[in-house]
Amino acid sequence: MPMDKKSADQIPDISDIISAKHRIHKEIRTTPVLSDTQLNAELGCELWLKCENLQHTGAFKFRGASNAIALLDETGRQGDVATHSSGNHGAALAFAASTHNRRAWVVMPENSVKTKVEAVRRYGGEVIFCPPTQPAREKGLAGLVAKGCIPVPPYDHGHIICGQGTAVIEMSEQIPGIDIILTPVGGGGLISGSAIAARALISNVNVIGAEPKGAADTALSLSLGKRIDKFPVDTIADGLRAIVGVLNFEIILDNVDKVITVSEKGIVEAMALIWQRFRMLIEPSSATVIAAILASPGDFSGRRVGAIISGGNVDLENLPFKT
Amino acid sequence: MPMDKKSADQIPDISDIISAKHRIHKEIRTTPVLSDTQLNAELGCELWLKCENLQHTGAFKFRGASNAIALLDETGRQGDVATHSSGNHGAALAFAASTHNRRAWVVMPENSVKTKVEAVRRYGGEVIFCPPTQPAREKGLAGLVAKGCIPVPPYDHGHIICGQGTAVIEMSEQIPGIDIILTPVGGGGLISGSAIAARALISNVNVIGAEPKGAADTALSLSLGKRIDKFPVDTIADGLRAIVGVLNFEIILDNVDKVITVSEKGIVEAMALIWQRFRMLIEPSSATVIAAILASPGDFSGRRVGAIISGGNVDLENLPFKT
Repeated sequence: MPMDKKSADQIPDISDIISAKHRIHKEIRTTPVLSDTQLNAELGCELWLKCENLQHTGAFKFRGASNAIALLDETGRQGDVATHSSGNHGAALAFAASTHNRRAWVVMPENSVKTKVEAVRRYGGEVIFCPPTQPAREKGLAGLVAKGCIPVPPYDHGHIICGQGTAVIEMSEQIPGIDIILTPVGGGGLISGSAIAARALISNVNVIGAEPKGAADTALSLSLGKRIDKFPVDTIADGLRAIVGVLNFEIILDNVDKVITVSEKGIVEAMALIWQRFRMLIEPSSATVIAAILASPGDFSGRRVGAIISGGNVDLENLPFKT
Repeated sequence: MPMDKKSADQIPDISDIISAKHRIHKEIRTTPVLSDTQLNAELGCELWLKCENLQHTGAFKFRGASNAIALLDETGRQGDVATHSSGNHGAALAFAASTHNRRAWVVMPENSVKTKVEAVRRYGGEVIFCPPTQPAREKGLAGLVAKGCIPVPPYDHGHIICGQGTAVIEMSEQIPGIDIILTPVGGGGLISGSAIAARALISNVNVIGAEPKGAADTALSLSLGKRIDKFPVDTIADGLRAIVGVLNFEIILDNVDKVITVSEKGIVEAMALIWQRFRMLIEPSSATVIAAILASPGDFSGRRVGAIISGGNVDLENLPFKT
């Protein structure tokens, strides 16, 4: 089997991620990186934001979805695709599917952010609502698969992980001498792909995750040395409410140095700070990385930090901060 | 006199703009350009957004302010700087001044957008409020100059025009084969610098301006062949309320193909569209360029359009559209 056709349940390596980059580079945006000297002085580190909020569909998720669907094309597998998603993966899959002339079905929790539901539909996806629990999401997806749809899960999937890792290939070229790669942790697709790419491409790099205290299953799993599969989730960071995936956790155990947990207040303050300093509205899930620097400055002091701003899909009518 | 020290009341040429780029390139951001195939298909043209909303201080104005202040340093002229501004030039001047260890005084209309007032202060500028009229703004500035401040006007000034023109140097490198450069028109600093750079660097280019009907003094001046100095201003586009400058109008007469006027409704719809498709909040002044394409599609059909998104300083609490 060629390296770039590794099956979706195997742990990918850097060559798989590089193949993904070649596969999707015409579909995705090479997103910009931004830094602000005034903010850096205040934070005590050199912070670079990798702006995946400016990626197609407003989130890094388009990278993984593009890679997964392009691989279906390459292997000649026809048919509709389906997934469950709080929104960003759903929109990404819908857009990637439409680009490849497929239909996408997306199971979404009833409490999904309105903007995200609309985005799935705008990109041509079909939305099916379910109760806001992990089992309900999985049951909804199983129903679609039973009808013949090809499941493209949001994170626990090698092809998705490879796509997400491509952001770090770009960062390694855009920001010389990165000391720390910092990403949010939800299902673990972004951090696992990022960690594999970072270890291979950047010397002496640390990989740090940021997770809401109200969805800190990965931090807890790491402290136990074993993946837990239940957690009482309560966070504004709607993109990070999922339990870390099996494949993802395995990669995280081996490749991530630390997961910093952040408070809801810290997340909201970080959203306001990024709006104030960069004029970008980032979603709460993305703000966790900035909250992590503010909560644990010692981990970042004097270092060059490449932080992935994972998405910008916020509901303007329900912003959690005042200007 | 060397080309790059041309006095501020002379019309600059491309060598002055290139000198400005060398002078300020370490201070400014090379802002990204973004395009969206789905939106392009809907608009019937290939639209590239030059994201000056992601420039330092959230607007292209930082380019001009940096150039003007760096030139003061080069010529050994010491002292505080002062200006009048509805906001973006003020914040830009404050930040550029602080970077060069100077103090900035900014005369602002009382009805300025709150975010913009706060930004001037955050960057270390001193705000002086005045009634929201052009004579009051000029009187306020004259008072500061009488006290010894060096005036750095927002647009009618060769060094400012050169700084603003640097965005088009970047665009000519980022987007091959541009057919049309499209910018908002307020005081005319951006479009005049852009037009000089575009004429020199891009073959067979058209330069088109976008102006709110409620501040369409430049369109009217062009139709009369003579700059008018009064106009009953009424527009949401707070950055475009000024009357076009003398030097700016002279450059526009010679170098701009057309100014398209847009409605208030068109501006608000364009803001919503850019939020929906790019997850960027752009200020009403910036949205005029998108409104111009929607209002006059025949001018853009089938062409590659480089549109300058001039700024992102919006008041989140007073957004003029619903999602």
